[in-house]
Amino acid sequence: MGALSNIKVLDLTRVLAGPYATMLLADLGAEIIKIEQPGKGDDARAYGPYKNGESAYFMSLNRNKQSLTLNLKTPEGKEILKELVKQVDVLVENFRPGTMERLGLGYDVLKEINPRLIYAASTGFGQTGPYSQRPAYDAVVQAMGGIMSITGQEGGMPTRVGTSIGDITAGLFSAIGILAALHERETSGLGQLVDVAMLDCQVAILENAISRYEFTGEVPTPIGNRHPSIVPFETFETKTSPIMVAAGNDRLWSTLCELLGLDIACEPCFATNPMRYENYESLKPILAEKFMNKTAEEWQDIFVEAGVPSGPINTVDKVVTNEQVVARDMIVEVDHPVAGETRIPGIPIKLSRTPGEIQQPAPVLSADTERLLEKYLGYTAEQIAELREKHVI
Amino acid sequence: MGALSNIKVLDLTRVLAGPYATMLLADLGAEIIKIEQPGKGDDARAYGPYKNGESAYFMSLNRNKQSLTLNLKTPEGKEILKELVKQVDVLVENFRPGTMERLGLGYDVLKEINPRLIYAASTGFGQTGPYSQRPAYDAVVQAMGGIMSITGQEGGMPTRVGTSIGDITAGLFSAIGILAALHERETSGLGQLVDVAMLDCQVAILENAISRYEFTGEVPTPIGNRHPSIVPFETFETKTSPIMVAAGNDRLWSTLCELLGLDIACEPCFATNPMRYENYESLKPILAEKFMNKTAEEWQDIFVEAGVPSGPINTVDKVVTNEQVVARDMIVEVDHPVAGETRIPGIPIKLSRTPGEIQQPAPVLSADTERLLEKYLGYTAEQIAELREKHVI
Repeated sequence: MGALSNIKVLDLTRVLAGPYATMLLADLGAEIIKIEQPGKGDDARAYGPYKNGESAYFMSLNRNKQSLTLNLKTPEGKEILKELVKQVDVLVENFRPGTMERLGLGYDVLKEINPRLIYAASTGFGQTGPYSQRPAYDAVVQAMGGIMSITGQEGGMPTRVGTSIGDITAGLFSAIGILAALHERETSGLGQLVDVAMLDCQVAILENAISRYEFTGEVPTPIGNRHPSIVPFETFETKTSPIMVAAGNDRLWSTLCELLGLDIACEPCFATNPMRYENYESLKPILAEKFMNKTAEEWQDIFVEAGVPSGPINTVDKVVTNEQVVARDMIVEVDHPVAGETRIPGIPIKLSRTPGEIQQPAPVLSADTERLLEKYLGYTAEQIAELREKHVI
Repeated sequence: MGALSNIKVLDLTRVLAGPYATMLLADLGAEIIKIEQPGKGDDARAYGPYKNGESAYFMSLNRNKQSLTLNLKTPEGKEILKELVKQVDVLVENFRPGTMERLGLGYDVLKEINPRLIYAASTGFGQTGPYSQRPAYDAVVQAMGGIMSITGQEGGMPTRVGTSIGDITAGLFSAIGILAALHERETSGLGQLVDVAMLDCQVAILENAISRYEFTGEVPTPIGNRHPSIVPFETFETKTSPIMVAAGNDRLWSTLCELLGLDIACEPCFATNPMRYENYESLKPILAEKFMNKTAEEWQDIFVEAGVPSGPINTVDKVVTNEQVVARDMIVEVDHPVAGETRIPGIPIKLSRTPGEIQQPAPVLSADTERLLEKYLGYTAEQIAELREKHVI
């Protein structure tokens, strides 16, 4: 039994931020009823590549969920949703602000039906503020939120993070908000609105970039793979592929010099981190030359033995077969009824007594509609057939 | 009262992943007792830049916390910690696996003292697996976890994300694990171990990169600021600064052409996304030329009016003054007793009924030691003076 196995979630989300949040809850045992548009489903079902017509993109975000198709524009669809709202703990949606209100299904309406409901809305810019109604995609939010301006090679272009970090962090913050609201409900007996905006989350992950700017007035820029203040702490080319080395203190610096066969550790111009930082331009080529003497694998073995923090720059094929990643169950094989066997990421939250579990791959569209309508609303096969005829489900 | 105001957290973490996790809990109302090494404190206190000797880096991660200095190598220090463990809900640490056991303060010992304790350990590689004992820094984990291999300009070098996304995501996943364990405790009455590894979290945020590789066998590479499959969805230079434009569907494509003064929307080679993707090389210069006709600000106004998702690539100085960021309270001014007034990021989780709050800036070292020892252990001023003399606190 997962930690959240007594929690039921009505999931009206599509594509990324919302589905990522509900996947986090699902992995820890919550029951997820994913509401999808009849015939079409989550937009992400249309994103390639495909295997037997099933989307890789969709599959990576929707394991452990049930699919119930429901047309929220029909009176019957609205009624079914309201009936489900009575029986769940959480509703998650990521429409543009106002959409649920126009459907007659806004938080103000739903909380009357179920005062214990936690209603989580995930949007680009939030429920409030002058940009509230603007459309957003991950790329737009990465641009506006500052992370692109500090990512990239030194002197180079601002660079988008290669994964949709705008969506993913919004999903993570949403899950935290939902769980905090669930905790509070134990005392008050009441639900509340959880409003998470992608742009806000980008600000919240800028880390010390904001404080550095506040303290110095200097606007942070891309600095490539170097650390902003520690040397050496960056990528080096080797005989084969580049390797990341992080000599975070003087002891590690001294060890590194020894391993590289350099006797410069105690030279006044390199002995302390401030001196190494100041003399970076003369130090870098000395180190770089030595790194070219061995392969990345040889250096890696040497550094691991000596306890110098380091690692290869793994491509995705190397990540999914990495021995630590595999040992930690971070790559899991699932057998999808249509797409067949495929590997997906595992669960990074390891709970000792109630571990998460990947119980099933992403559902095919509408896979659970009949079962759920019967279970939650007691509908008969006849009633369900009628709804299907009316294109409600 | 915050959503977590009845939760007490003993925080033994330093630098980033751990302090980020406990900051998330603190922002939502949890009481955080930050245990620091006497005289020195959290390593991050030594990271510049400084204002009146106080670290910007530390300040960005430790608001809403109390500082209690405690030498865990002394018998008295261990006793005080054990006494506190009896009275808290959560303990968070980010030492290398085995460190707490060597101090005689491992989870096995502490759960005997308080079976309801949730013990969260945040590490580079996790409590298990062949790399468990290796040292890690954010840069190493970003390299090994795959995100660098898909971040960067097209054909360019793998690039480190400019913020410590390895640490920050570990902090986010840890907070989710802690809250899920708290929820489960309502039923079972028991705590558990929450084991979160930075490397695991990197795998979990690779998003569809893993599924894409699984389905196609093609190893993902950096693709700059372009979307992997949608066109146009990227950065364009303007008369002034670059702008991000995301025309996610054919309707937006058509609108964009109109706004740019181009009559190519319906041309067979550009009419659909697959065709635009195929003819990207001929399309890009046509668009790029038009974008040079106006400033970024002019284009931004035009696109907002027309509902085309777009945004400037904001640098940090622009982010902290952005009207939406400000309207959402995502930049908050705090008055630090030593450093004075400074701005820090706000709280991105907006709860309607029990909102989070930034009640105080990061504590100066040991600011709360006496008060907390009196409150939790009933120590007298005399006893406290004695502990100070023995360098226990």
